[in-house]
Amino acid sequence: MNKATFYHAGCPVCISAEQQVLEALDKNRFTIELVHLGENKTRISEAEQAGIKSVPALLLDGNAFHINFGASLNDVKGGA
Amino acid sequence: MNKATFYHAGCPVCISAEQQVLEALDKNRFTIELVHLGENKTRISEAEQAGIKSVPALLLDGNAFHINFGASLNDVKGGA
Repeated sequence: MNKATFYHAGCPVCISAEQQVLEALDKNRFTIELVHLGENKTRISEAEQAGIKSVPALLLDGNAFHINFGASLNDVKGGA
Repeated sequence: MNKATFYHAGCPVCISAEQQVLEALDKNRFTIELVHLGENKTRISEAEQAGIKSVPALLLDGNAFHINFGASLNDVKGGA
Protein backbone atom coordinates (compact mmCIF):
# COMPACT_ATOMS: atom_id res chain seq x y z
CA MET A 1 0.00 0.00 0.00
CA ASN A 2 1.05 3.54 -0.66
CA LYS A 3 0.85 6.07 2.13
CA ALA A 4 -1.17 9.29 2.06
CA THR A 5 -0.99 11.63 5.05
CA PHE A 6 -3.37 14.55 5.21
CA TYR A 7 -2.22 17.36 7.50
CA HIS A 8 -4.84 19.86 8.56
CA ALA A 9 -5.81 22.19 11.38
CA GLY A 10 -9.57 21.99 11.38
CA CYS A 11 -9.97 25.17 9.31
CA PRO A 12 -12.83 25.51 6.80
CA VAL A 13 -10.43 25.21 3.85
CA CYS A 14 -8.98 22.09 5.47
CA ILE A 15 -12.39 20.50 5.91
CA SER A 16 -13.37 21.20 2.31
CA ALA A 17 -10.14 19.61 1.04
CA GLU A 18 -10.58 16.66 3.37
CA GLN A 19 -14.14 16.04 2.25
CA GLN A 20 -13.38 16.26 -1.43
CA VAL A 21 -9.72 15.62 -2.26
CA LEU A 22 -9.02 13.06 0.44
CA GLU A 23 -12.35 11.39 -0.21
CA ALA A 24 -11.46 11.04 -3.90
CA LEU A 25 -8.29 9.04 -3.27
CA ASP A 26 -8.24 5.37 -4.13
CA LYS A 27 -8.52 3.63 -0.75
CA ASN A 28 -7.59 0.31 -2.34
CA ARG A 29 -4.12 1.65 -3.05
CA PHE A 30 -3.56 4.17 -0.28
CA THR A 31 -3.47 3.90 3.48
CA ILE A 32 -4.73 7.26 4.67
CA GLU A 33 -3.69 8.97 7.86
CA LEU A 34 -5.34 12.16 9.05
CA VAL A 35 -3.21 14.42 11.26
CA HIS A 36 -4.71 17.46 13.01
CA LEU A 37 -1.64 19.59 13.66
CA GLY A 38 -3.53 21.93 15.98
CA GLU A 39 -4.25 18.98 18.27
CA ASN A 40 -0.97 17.13 17.62
CA LYS A 41 1.64 19.85 17.76
CA THR A 42 4.38 17.31 18.32
CA ARG A 43 3.94 16.30 14.69
CA ILE A 44 4.51 19.80 13.28
CA SER A 45 8.26 19.19 13.00
CA GLU A 46 7.61 16.00 11.01
CA ALA A 47 5.40 17.99 8.63
CA GLU A 48 8.04 20.70 8.28
CA GLN A 49 10.71 18.15 7.49
CA ALA A 50 8.47 16.76 4.76
CA GLY A 51 8.42 20.21 3.15
CA ILE A 52 4.97 21.26 4.31
CA LYS A 53 4.55 25.01 4.68
CA SER A 54 0.79 25.33 5.13
CA VAL A 55 -2.35 23.33 5.72
CA PRO A 56 -4.26 21.63 4.30
CA ALA A 57 -1.53 19.53 2.72
CA LEU A 58 -1.33 16.02 1.42
CA LEU A 59 1.85 14.01 1.66
CA LEU A 60 1.93 11.29 -0.98
CA ASP A 61 4.83 8.89 -0.69
CA GLY A 62 6.98 11.61 0.84
CA ASN A 63 6.06 14.46 -1.53
CA ALA A 64 4.16 17.47 -0.20
CA PHE A 65 1.17 18.86 -2.03
CA HIS A 66 -0.39 21.99 -0.58
CA ILE A 67 -4.09 22.18 -1.37
CA ASN A 68 -5.43 25.73 -1.47
CA PHE A 69 -4.43 27.68 1.62
CA GLY A 70 -5.94 27.47 5.08
CA ALA A 71 -3.16 28.50 7.45
CA SER A 72 0.62 28.54 7.54
CA LEU A 73 2.45 26.13 9.83
CA ASN A 74 3.63 29.18 11.74
CA ASP A 75 0.01 30.12 12.38
CA VAL A 76 -0.70 26.59 13.57
CA LYS A 77 2.29 26.75 15.93
CA GLY A 78 1.12 30.04 17.35
CA GLY A 79 -2.55 29.13 17.61
CA ALA A 80 -4.40 27.80 20.61
CA MET B 1 -19.39 8.88 -12.05
CA ASN B 2 -17.98 11.98 -10.46
CA LYS B 3 -15.97 14.37 -12.57
CA ALA B 4 -12.37 15.40 -11.90
CA THR B 5 -10.76 17.95 -14.19
CA PHE B 6 -7.05 18.59 -13.85
CA TYR B 7 -5.92 21.94 -15.30
CA HIS B 8 -2.25 22.35 -15.95
CA ALA B 9 0.24 24.11 -18.19
CA GLY B 10 2.99 21.56 -18.59
CA CYS B 11 5.13 23.13 -15.86
CA PRO B 12 7.33 20.93 -13.60
CA VAL B 13 5.05 21.53 -10.59
CA CYS B 14 2.08 20.56 -12.79
CA ILE B 15 3.70 17.33 -13.91
CA SER B 16 4.59 16.35 -10.36
CA ALA B 17 0.98 16.94 -9.22
CA GLU B 18 -0.36 15.08 -12.21
CA GLN B 19 1.85 12.08 -11.62
CA GLN B 20 1.08 11.83 -7.93
CA VAL B 21 -2.20 13.49 -6.96
CA LEU B 22 -4.13 12.72 -10.12
CA GLU B 23 -2.71 9.23 -10.19
CA ALA B 24 -3.94 8.64 -6.64
CA LEU B 25 -7.58 9.36 -7.43
CA ASP B 26 -10.04 6.51 -7.50
CA LYS B 27 -10.65 5.89 -11.20
CA ASN B 28 -13.61 3.67 -10.40
CA ARG B 29 -15.47 6.70 -9.07
CA PHE B 30 -14.03 9.58 -11.09
CA THR B 31 -13.96 10.34 -14.77
CA ILE B 32 -10.73 12.27 -15.23
CA GLU B 33 -10.13 14.96 -17.81
CA LEU B 34 -6.73 16.52 -18.34
CA VAL B 35 -6.72 20.08 -19.73
CA HIS B 36 -3.48 21.75 -20.82
CA LEU B 37 -4.40 25.43 -20.65
CA GLY B 38 -1.27 26.49 -22.50
CA GLU B 39 -2.39 24.44 -25.48
CA ASN B 40 -6.12 25.02 -25.01
CA LYS B 41 -6.38 28.72 -24.25
CA THR B 42 -10.03 28.75 -25.18
CA ARG B 43 -10.67 26.86 -21.95
CA ILE B 44 -8.98 29.43 -19.68
CA SER B 45 -12.27 31.32 -19.21
CA GLU B 46 -13.99 28.10 -18.13
CA ALA B 47 -11.24 27.55 -15.55
CA GLU B 48 -11.56 31.13 -14.30
CA GLN B 49 -15.31 30.79 -13.93
CA ALA B 50 -14.72 27.67 -11.82
CA GLY B 51 -12.62 29.78 -9.45
CA ILE B 52 -9.21 28.60 -10.61
CA LYS B 53 -6.45 31.16 -10.10
CA SER B 54 -3.35 29.10 -10.81
CA VAL B 55 -2.17 25.77 -12.14
CA PRO B 56 -1.94 22.97 -11.35
CA ALA B 57 -5.51 22.80 -10.09
CA LEU B 58 -8.02 20.06 -9.65
CA LEU B 59 -11.72 20.68 -10.10
CA LEU B 60 -13.75 18.11 -8.18
CA ASP B 61 -17.47 18.29 -8.80
CA GLY B 62 -17.22 22.02 -9.41
CA ASN B 63 -14.93 22.93 -6.53
CA ALA B 64 -11.42 24.23 -7.26
CA PHE B 65 -8.41 22.87 -5.40
CA HIS B 66 -5.09 24.52 -6.21
CA ILE B 67 -2.21 22.10 -5.73
CA ASN B 68 1.07 23.80 -4.89
CA PHE B 69 1.84 26.63 -7.33
CA GLY B 70 3.17 26.33 -10.84
CA ALA B 71 1.90 29.44 -12.63
CA SER B 72 -0.95 31.91 -12.37
CA LEU B 73 -3.66 31.88 -15.00
CA ASN B 74 -2.43 35.34 -16.01
CA ASP B 75 0.97 33.85 -16.73
CA VAL B 76 -0.64 31.11 -18.79
CA LYS B 77 -2.62 33.71 -20.76
CA GLY B 78 0.49 35.73 -21.44
CA GLY B 79 2.76 32.78 -22.27
CA ALA B 80 3.61 31.44 -25.71
